[in-house]
Amino acid sequence: MLRLFVNRRQKMVEFEVKNKDLLARIGRLKTKSGIVETPAFLPVINMAKQSVTPRELWEEFGCRILITNAYIIKKQHADKALNMGIHSFLDFPGTIMTDSGAYQILAYGDIEATPDEIIKFQEEIDTDIATILDLPTGWAVSKERAEYTVRETVNRAGKLQELRSRNDILWVGPIQGGRYLDLVAKSARKMSRIQFDIHALGSPTPVMEQYLFDLLVDMIFAAKMNLPFNRPFHLFGAGHPFMFALAVALGCDLFDSAAYNIFAQDDRYLTTYGTVHLKELEYLPCSCPVCYKRDAQDFREMPKRERETELTRHNLHVCFAEIKRIKQAIREGRLWEHLMRRTHGHPSLLQAMKRLKDYCEFIERHSPVVKKSGLFFFSSIDLARPEVIRHDKKLRERYTPPEKAKVLVLYPSVGPRRTLRSKLYKRALADICEKLRIDHSEAQVCFYIPPFGVVPKELSDVYPLSQFEIVCPPDADTIRYVAQRIIDYLREKRYERRVMIIKSGTWQEEIAQICKEAFEKEGKFLEFLIV
Amino acid sequence: MLRLFVNRRQKMVEFEVKNKDLLARIGRLKTKSGIVETPAFLPVINMAKQSVTPRELWEEFGCRILITNAYIIKKQHADKALNMGIHSFLDFPGTIMTDSGAYQILAYGDIEATPDEIIKFQEEIDTDIATILDLPTGWAVSKERAEYTVRETVNRAGKLQELRSRNDILWVGPIQGGRYLDLVAKSARKMSRIQFDIHALGSPTPVMEQYLFDLLVDMIFAAKMNLPFNRPFHLFGAGHPFMFALAVALGCDLFDSAAYNIFAQDDRYLTTYGTVHLKELEYLPCSCPVCYKRDAQDFREMPKRERETELTRHNLHVCFAEIKRIKQAIREGRLWEHLMRRTHGHPSLLQAMKRLKDYCEFIERHSPVVKKSGLFFFSSIDLARPEVIRHDKKLRERYTPPEKAKVLVLYPSVGPRRTLRSKLYKRALADICEKLRIDHSEAQVCFYIPPFGVVPKELSDVYPLSQFEIVCPPDADTIRYVAQRIIDYLREKRYERRVMIIKSGTWQEEIAQICKEAFEKEGKFLEFLIV
Repeated sequence: MLRLFVNRRQKMVEFEVKNKDLLARIGRLKTKSGIVETPAFLPVINMAKQSVTPRELWEEFGCRILITNAYIIKKQHADKALNMGIHSFLDFPGTIMTDSGAYQILAYGDIEATPDEIIKFQEEIDTDIATILDLPTGWAVSKERAEYTVRETVNRAGKLQELRSRNDILWVGPIQGGRYLDLVAKSARKMSRIQFDIHALGSPTPVMEQYLFDLLVDMIFAAKMNLPFNRPFHLFGAGHPFMFALAVALGCDLFDSAAYNIFAQDDRYLTTYGTVHLKELEYLPCSCPVCYKRDAQDFREMPKRERETELTRHNLHVCFAEIKRIKQAIREGRLWEHLMRRTHGHPSLLQAMKRLKDYCEFIERHSPVVKKSGLFFFSSIDLARPEVIRHDKKLRERYTPPEKAKVLVLYPSVGPRRTLRSKLYKRALADICEKLRIDHSEAQVCFYIPPFGVVPKELSDVYPLSQFEIVCPPDADTIRYVAQRIIDYLREKRYERRVMIIKSGTWQEEIAQICKEAFEKEGKFLEFLIV
Repeated sequence: MLRLFVNRRQKMVEFEVKNKDLLARIGRLKTKSGIVETPAFLPVINMAKQSVTPRELWEEFGCRILITNAYIIKKQHADKALNMGIHSFLDFPGTIMTDSGAYQILAYGDIEATPDEIIKFQEEIDTDIATILDLPTGWAVSKERAEYTVRETVNRAGKLQELRSRNDILWVGPIQGGRYLDLVAKSARKMSRIQFDIHALGSPTPVMEQYLFDLLVDMIFAAKMNLPFNRPFHLFGAGHPFMFALAVALGCDLFDSAAYNIFAQDDRYLTTYGTVHLKELEYLPCSCPVCYKRDAQDFREMPKRERETELTRHNLHVCFAEIKRIKQAIREGRLWEHLMRRTHGHPSLLQAMKRLKDYCEFIERHSPVVKKSGLFFFSSIDLARPEVIRHDKKLRERYTPPEKAKVLVLYPSVGPRRTLRSKLYKRALADICEKLRIDHSEAQVCFYIPPFGVVPKELSDVYPLSQFEIVCPPDADTIRYVAQRIIDYLREKRYERRVMIIKSGTWQEEIAQICKEAFEKEGKFLEFLIV
């Protein structure tokens, strides 16, 4: 009993977060085979079909963590793996995560091993990060079946602490529920009470194969919002590098993919914006060591085996470079910008990005307040950015206009580069006061600035209200948003007079029109000065 | 006189276009030192500051054309260049283009050479593509001055045929006018009458340095629309790889840049979405041979000279890979999609892309009608795509509904994946006819489909009307556009009844609302069926 007791007293997982942006984080995850920097892409190793060895991954690609399937190894190479240990067996000195065979349950209905055996086997082969044998929900299943998979996974998870005999392995608790978001949330709540080191979203493969990335966003949020936020989160089978940025932005710290290998077998060439079959390629749109001196014809002329290996190498370069791009974007505070570029790779991805609006307050709460870089605003999609949400919230909840302010002058701006720092501004304001017979001391200037809405002049230097660039003219949805912020502001704050300055022939007229209609309905008065 | 006459009888430039997309083209430009495939990026060679040699460009980077400054060579190395010839002098066996020193006039006011000397010198050093010594307009100049530069450039150009003594060199006729678009157009019209092999847009550097890419779009169109479309077009100083795609899409076949070198001297690292100073980098967001095994710290620890060379190499990899990406996009008919990704690199670029709307009919006329790939639609910016413009035009000008069609049923769709191929569609239509007591044989179904607008069912399989994907729901500007297309269609075509089917709670309601308001104003009747 004592032995069991000691082993049960599990240590907290050591996961130190260095940088954050959106829900993403650069972290250092401690495992018994070394520290892994996250976000990390884990190549799936299938020893039967591996054209790039784990050793090459370590030496050539700087790969520090990979994943392989404990169940398949148990079935095909149990003795060897048990004798050598998984690190020698794979010839990989870094961190090894093992999956449990759950995917095989999904694919073949059942597997030839019990949950208990899978736990024991992973300990015996000395894996670093192990996964319980959960029961995956899958895609086209009834809610009853989905509910059963959630319950059964929790049951199996509950037995882990009794069954495990060592405490230097990190254990992964998969979240089930599939496309039933309430079940995903329930699964997350239940699994979070069990002492796992890492959680993972199960069954996303069919969702990703059908490009239902908007649903994937919902599933990840349903899980993340009901799990301890700081516990590392893994996304199983996060197939394609064009969605790595999205996964990371949603708080996935680890994700595995076999696409680099499977696609290469089928002559498919990965890019950060999609996949191209070799026969469709003439130029190789890549600067990696495999591609930079070649064209597509060179690939096509290689013997199949060599081509597969070279394509696999290229595909790996794409994946690892994308991870570095993402990490650099997190450090710069520009992950949103990076997402904008990536989600314009495919309409399904942009549709998923649009879904972030539904979770903007959760994202806002977890995003850093000050960043190194100015912000780029492109379209109404950016209205869901934490900085936009935060400004609106602060203005609403914490801002009171100066007491002496009786006349509100709403002055247009499209960002620092264009108007705010203009020398003409002061003169223009004096003119306005004179024209409207406003006592300068009673006037308060607020800018109306896409995408932020109303920005009192005294706040306009606060980050990021003058550290941004925006495409001009703004799109119709952004105009509506800004107009609505003006309407809200004028409803909430008291002024004796309200004057809106408009430059004729610009987007400002549209905003004025929306405000005018709203106020006429309420029988209120808003003055306009066209300049 | 005979000799002059023979030489004046210049051959047509040999420029064979292989693939087209938007105004871009993959072409083969014949020069006396070989065939150059366009679009081509020409690294600027400055022998005094060159850390990567022309020979390395040829061998390691597959660079087949470069540009250097004839005036600087004349000033500093005239004898050597005259004796050796420019190819041996630079040690570059490919095509060499020479600039004339015009940029130096802009920078220093005047240069120590006459236009005649510059023509003669370029012939004598045996350049492949030569530039007359034009008088650049520059940026902050009066219209009078700008007009003078246009006139003077035309004068100088007019003398070329008399002065040149060989006919195996291609001559470049720069277009001046600067930010005065009417002058650019005038310059283009005048220069196009002179037998140049290639035209070029002069003076864009200040525009690019200030990120006024929308103005650059205007300038390029002012030139291109007034030049022989099939003559190759060069953009001087097209600085940064993040704008290569834009330049190519506008029909720039050649463009030079010194950024790769100048930026490296200043520890600046190019990416396809911007420039990062080495001190801001922690990860190297790149898979090129220089970067893939390194991190930023490795760069920082190098001796200055080595760092500059390695950075130059990286910057070159970025430039050349981007050209290959652009060419592959042209081949796939996906240059617009590539532009969307690239212009989401910086708001100024997206603002420039929005400007394409003003030239959409010109672009439509020159864009291929059928493509290999389906189209991706992301936002209202895509409404300027040639395919959208073309469909609207065809429907307006060439389409007449079937004679028996008395009842128009407007049926919503968001593209092939979602509705068109749905089995439910036929049943739904039967239900609708029954409900509204429509004789099936008198009903004509037209889909209303973002972004195309109205698509008669019998045309819905024609490319690209069912070969596309779109982000759903569409943005407000796209909804307005589609509603306006419906309104226009209903005004132009005669039906006895008009029924619009709407799924409640969707973007279709917004479209219906706009249509309803428009028709109420006109006292016309439109029926709605909410399903």
